[in-house]
Amino acid sequence: MSQLDARLRKYAQVITQVGANVQPGQRVWINCSTDSLPLTRLVVEEAYKLGASDVHVKLTDDAMTRLHAEYQTTEYYSELPQHIIDEMNFYLDDNVVLIRINSSAPDLLAGIDSEKLAAAAKVAGEKMTYYRSRVMSDKNAWTIAAYPSPAWAKLVFPEETDEDTAVAKLLDAMLEATRIKVEDPVKEWQEHRDRLTEKATHLNNRHYKALHYTADGTDLTIELPKTHLWVAAGGRNEKGTSFVPNMPTEEVFTAAEKTGVNGYVSNKKPLSYQGNIIDGFKLHFKDGAVVDFECEQGYDVLKNLIEMDEGSRFLGEVALVPHDSPISNSGLLFFNTLYDENAANHVALGAAYPTNIEGGGDMTPEEIAAAGINQSAAHVDFMIGCADMNIDGILEDGTREPVFRDGNWAF
Amino acid sequence: MSQLDARLRKYAQVITQVGANVQPGQRVWINCSTDSLPLTRLVVEEAYKLGASDVHVKLTDDAMTRLHAEYQTTEYYSELPQHIIDEMNFYLDDNVVLIRINSSAPDLLAGIDSEKLAAAAKVAGEKMTYYRSRVMSDKNAWTIAAYPSPAWAKLVFPEETDEDTAVAKLLDAMLEATRIKVEDPVKEWQEHRDRLTEKATHLNNRHYKALHYTADGTDLTIELPKTHLWVAAGGRNEKGTSFVPNMPTEEVFTAAEKTGVNGYVSNKKPLSYQGNIIDGFKLHFKDGAVVDFECEQGYDVLKNLIEMDEGSRFLGEVALVPHDSPISNSGLLFFNTLYDENAANHVALGAAYPTNIEGGGDMTPEEIAAAGINQSAAHVDFMIGCADMNIDGILEDGTREPVFRDGNWAF
Repeated sequence: MSQLDARLRKYAQVITQVGANVQPGQRVWINCSTDSLPLTRLVVEEAYKLGASDVHVKLTDDAMTRLHAEYQTTEYYSELPQHIIDEMNFYLDDNVVLIRINSSAPDLLAGIDSEKLAAAAKVAGEKMTYYRSRVMSDKNAWTIAAYPSPAWAKLVFPEETDEDTAVAKLLDAMLEATRIKVEDPVKEWQEHRDRLTEKATHLNNRHYKALHYTADGTDLTIELPKTHLWVAAGGRNEKGTSFVPNMPTEEVFTAAEKTGVNGYVSNKKPLSYQGNIIDGFKLHFKDGAVVDFECEQGYDVLKNLIEMDEGSRFLGEVALVPHDSPISNSGLLFFNTLYDENAANHVALGAAYPTNIEGGGDMTPEEIAAAGINQSAAHVDFMIGCADMNIDGILEDGTREPVFRDGNWAF
Repeated sequence: MSQLDARLRKYAQVITQVGANVQPGQRVWINCSTDSLPLTRLVVEEAYKLGASDVHVKLTDDAMTRLHAEYQTTEYYSELPQHIIDEMNFYLDDNVVLIRINSSAPDLLAGIDSEKLAAAAKVAGEKMTYYRSRVMSDKNAWTIAAYPSPAWAKLVFPEETDEDTAVAKLLDAMLEATRIKVEDPVKEWQEHRDRLTEKATHLNNRHYKALHYTADGTDLTIELPKTHLWVAAGGRNEKGTSFVPNMPTEEVFTAAEKTGVNGYVSNKKPLSYQGNIIDGFKLHFKDGAVVDFECEQGYDVLKNLIEMDEGSRFLGEVALVPHDSPISNSGLLFFNTLYDENAANHVALGAAYPTNIEGGGDMTPEEIAAAGINQSAAHVDFMIGCADMNIDGILEDGTREPVFRDGNWAF
């Protein structure tokens, strides 16, 4: 076996053993596109070796995805027939663990009518409620990993004329960031999770009332709910099985108080959303809501996101990631949220994770709303962290403590 | 564009314009596996160019298909949840045209427990009734084409050590057999269909009561229903749109009288069924039913087929193909029914096509049974033609006429 083959096998083992933590007899659902086949085939095999009863793979192909978007009318493009909902619910109700392997080009749908994309997002928002309620509250385990496609690799390494070389370079960077290139990656992941959990424990002990962010282009105060919980690198599904939702993961995160966000914030890395790149944007918040925004690239797509539903103009998640992280230190811009959000402080427009407040995992939507956190069909992270970012934690009595200084942890 | 690219584009155009005959506003459903992507992407694009409203692609991957078969228990492997039936019915009811692009290795599932394969076939037989009733009676248009996978190409060209060369050689043979390498393949197909239709018209005018096959290992009499119709190279869906079910196609075919088959018949080319190769077999018929059989390779898989349901031991289709056909003259054994059946006389175990009797397309299952033709969840063609085969047509008064002599048309 070549070194690359051995590493890909380890990557598949980490995804199935740590990320998904597949249990004997459990069903597995994989969403991926054809560019990921060298990895996905190994993930399927490793899942079966762990005793999966059924590995259900939904394969798409980027070239076809682009053709669908180009040629289908809005009516067909935004169609979501009942059998698709039924299929998802069938698996969700049988304790399925969801694995997504991202490989699509970040700008796959550039130039597609943004109203068409918005219509598709709107239908999914309206019809995929059960799916979201299960996943956002960790009732089903889920994990997201990535594998490079040629188009993605060429975006990250534009100077690289040879496609295969670009793919190899991006894959190597991914394996580095995902801590696969060590002797025992499963053990490394356990230690990594312990370190992140220490940060979460510290923040839970401080129990800040609010965070105040300042950087070039940013002056934002985010209040935190009274019962907020900081979480790192893992959840537990309703059977009590642990899993890691993101690979890589460097973040410690909690929920924002829905109506407690004020000021303005600028993005610091491009955001790939709905196959389009959004960049150079600044959001102005008042009492939680985006009341104004500027955007240099992808204005219409960002506008669609903000206007998707009642909750998509409010913040859900608040996540802290030191600027001095392995991904950030690679110096690469991945144009993919899974990687870029783990290289920078970020926040998410849209739904909060119910598991970020005490007892939230078992709350009804009404109880979640009463607890002061946001609900939406959207949950879109964007990167706001940078080398000059300072964050103060504000205690109940108004005292300020440094949480971040010059982009990194201050404690 | 390279010559190969240009030919693949023409191949996709023939599949969509002649095989599927996609109409503006029509839905298209494609079943294929990942090895076929270079062709399937073009088929998707050409279908949209013809005005397809939605091209729904069900992508599988042979490596994963093999893993599912190896690791899943019979219970999971034979699972067919309602949402899958609902999905198929949703498209069938909306005038979908079905395109299958075969590329899997003929022996993909060799060594898998035949009882597992039988259980999966049994469930499909029981639950896919609506699908079969629509397709077998041409209510929905459908077409089957092929594209080489490396594993398939290596089986056809075992002496070829380079995988890419083997694939290129098999693809070239396919393009030759499918009449793509001419200046105007769409026009060539029209002329080809006209020639085949002449043969069907001749046979319909003769209206034989029975056919008597003799060859080495074969002495078989097949009675034909009173209202039988010979058909060639095409059907019409319930909207009246023409289509060509097989690409390539060289056959002229009709239905057997269910209880009117007597004697014995030997296969002359290997049969790939359920990912297994069946070869060296001889079936003995009495009053339509297989009452005994011998089989050198794939005995269990053949036994499962014969015992699948009440109708799977009776013959449905009877098809005539001259031994001196383009595919046969290539000297290649394709190990794939789509190709091999169009190089040799063949018959099918299982269901007859209702469109092979007068008014059959609109008959209920009861009326079809009363008309004397077979019904089954199975429809599996196998090749019985060879260079020494003679076929006599027997008229109502007992007179015999030569239909085939030494493997070729006698008229």
